[in-house]
Amino acid sequence: MNASGPVIGIDLGGTKILARAVDPADPVTPLAEQRADTPRSGGGDVLESMAAVVDDLDRMLVAGGHEAAVAIGVGAPGLVTSSGVLRFAPNIAGDAELAVAEQMGALTGRPVAVDNDATFATLAEWQRGAGRGSDNLVMVTLGTGIGAGLVVGGRIQRGANGFAGELGHVVIDPNGPPCPCGRRGCWERYASGSGMGRLARDAAESGRAERVLALAGGDPEAVRGEHVAVALTEADPGAVALVDEFAWWVALGLANLVATLDSDRLIIGGGLATLGSALLEPVRRHFATLVLGAGHRPEVQIVLAELGPSAGAIGAATAAAGMVGGA
Amino acid sequence: MNASGPVIGIDLGGTKILARAVDPADPVTPLAEQRADTPRSGGGDVLESMAAVVDDLDRMLVAGGHEAAVAIGVGAPGLVTSSGVLRFAPNIAGDAELAVAEQMGALTGRPVAVDNDATFATLAEWQRGAGRGSDNLVMVTLGTGIGAGLVVGGRIQRGANGFAGELGHVVIDPNGPPCPCGRRGCWERYASGSGMGRLARDAAESGRAERVLALAGGDPEAVRGEHVAVALTEADPGAVALVDEFAWWVALGLANLVATLDSDRLIIGGGLATLGSALLEPVRRHFATLVLGAGHRPEVQIVLAELGPSAGAIGAATAAAGMVGGA
Repeated sequence: MNASGPVIGIDLGGTKILARAVDPADPVTPLAEQRADTPRSGGGDVLESMAAVVDDLDRMLVAGGHEAAVAIGVGAPGLVTSSGVLRFAPNIAGDAELAVAEQMGALTGRPVAVDNDATFATLAEWQRGAGRGSDNLVMVTLGTGIGAGLVVGGRIQRGANGFAGELGHVVIDPNGPPCPCGRRGCWERYASGSGMGRLARDAAESGRAERVLALAGGDPEAVRGEHVAVALTEADPGAVALVDEFAWWVALGLANLVATLDSDRLIIGGGLATLGSALLEPVRRHFATLVLGAGHRPEVQIVLAELGPSAGAIGAATAAAGMVGGA
Repeated sequence: MNASGPVIGIDLGGTKILARAVDPADPVTPLAEQRADTPRSGGGDVLESMAAVVDDLDRMLVAGGHEAAVAIGVGAPGLVTSSGVLRFAPNIAGDAELAVAEQMGALTGRPVAVDNDATFATLAEWQRGAGRGSDNLVMVTLGTGIGAGLVVGGRIQRGANGFAGELGHVVIDPNGPPCPCGRRGCWERYASGSGMGRLARDAAESGRAERVLALAGGDPEAVRGEHVAVALTEADPGAVALVDEFAWWVALGLANLVATLDSDRLIIGGGLATLGSALLEPVRRHFATLVLGAGHRPEVQIVLAELGPSAGAIGAATAAAGMVGGA
């Protein structure tokens, strides 16, 4: 591997563009960072905004005595094909497909690696974070929805079309609540931030979450996951019970993954991971009762992500470095 | 690869031992075949019976002008570790672990490859049957229970401990019927032969399967999947509706697999696959409504296994050949 210049990793979210330039030898430590709002006007404007962020980072790099970036990685929410086309990303491109790799390459004049944001976060955690040393892991990102990345047999797996890891829409209760995707009882209806909100509203309506309801101003419809998090810091029993219920659903989906993939490590990231051990402890406890063959297999390690919200950008930078033989 | 002598593949089932000797260059065509009952008296006797079957096949090979077998593969139902120890196989070894690779090696004086029976069936279908050309497939074996094997990223995947593909105990309805494993609503409660029997008994009890009930002698408790199969050959509407319901549950589990792994081919084997297009057609139809991003991904091929009940032994022979550099 020859030494190479800095690379840029971009985490393209539905509302924010987070970007950082790094030395490929140390993708965790940023040389420069930049953010922008994700334009609501769709694909072309999103690409222009990302290109402007790249320009900003180039200027910062050069001002700091570095070269301009030599390659770019972009993690995007939705289905990303092996040729770097973003599909099925309504928040960013509506119904259209967006040829992110090709068009960002044209706009910036550099090689561009594109993948699903959760896949890049998984790559980062696997190589530099909570996944080190495992050849079979799943990282689940519990945010508004659920993202996921898979390492199976020592490799990041994207599936036949680059769509692997869409765990949010694994159906775990066919009689469960309807999902915007058209099915019922998707894992995301339970084990995501919006799932936590739904469980909390149900609890508030049935009188099982008085403190949470009070924090929401007394209106069950106004209850959100954030109110549960606040009540939890007060050790409110209703909030503890809610997180326990939520953790059961998280554990159920994780146990199903382990029955399928025999992973030895499960990494929990995303906004819900900020609950820390208050989430991790009940997830582990329920998982132990739900996992297949508990007495017959080595313990599955369930851990929190280590790299935080920058994991996606770190993974994108790592993939960019891979395109130019760096790190 | 150097040429090598014949190899033996053994499919160790809960009731039968099926074994065949093959030329590694053509593992599908048997040079000799032998069967035996699986002893009900447990691990040591099972190993002795398999060794006797190997002796029988050696004699047939030599009588046919071949060498004796140079390596042996054994597919077993249950969890098989990477060192060839069978665990969690109550029908064969009770609560005990059985060091099949080591002990069969000692009994026969030859290298022995051991893996889960469904994994070996998958290997066979992938290399010689319905899976050729795919790098991302799942084979599900719908028999009394559900077995499965995974090809992900162009490799058979066994997971961290050799336990991957235990799809029968993926929970798809946490409020569903109890499973002997201790959970509720495992996929096996719906999409296996015993699941078909349960659905049929429910239908018979509620008056939705009169012909099936008659075939069972009028006792709902006596209804089995076989009665559905017979009624289906008569185009009985109740049986057609039952298979449609059954197919929905099969399709739900398959759609969950594709959301997770982005497989491009799904192979259905096992006893239920003998229903042929009467099963395949409704599975495909329901799958199309259940798969994530139907309009955004290439069609997933759902096909029947091609190698029939010998797939496990063929895969075991293929693995045996791999141990001695054959084929």
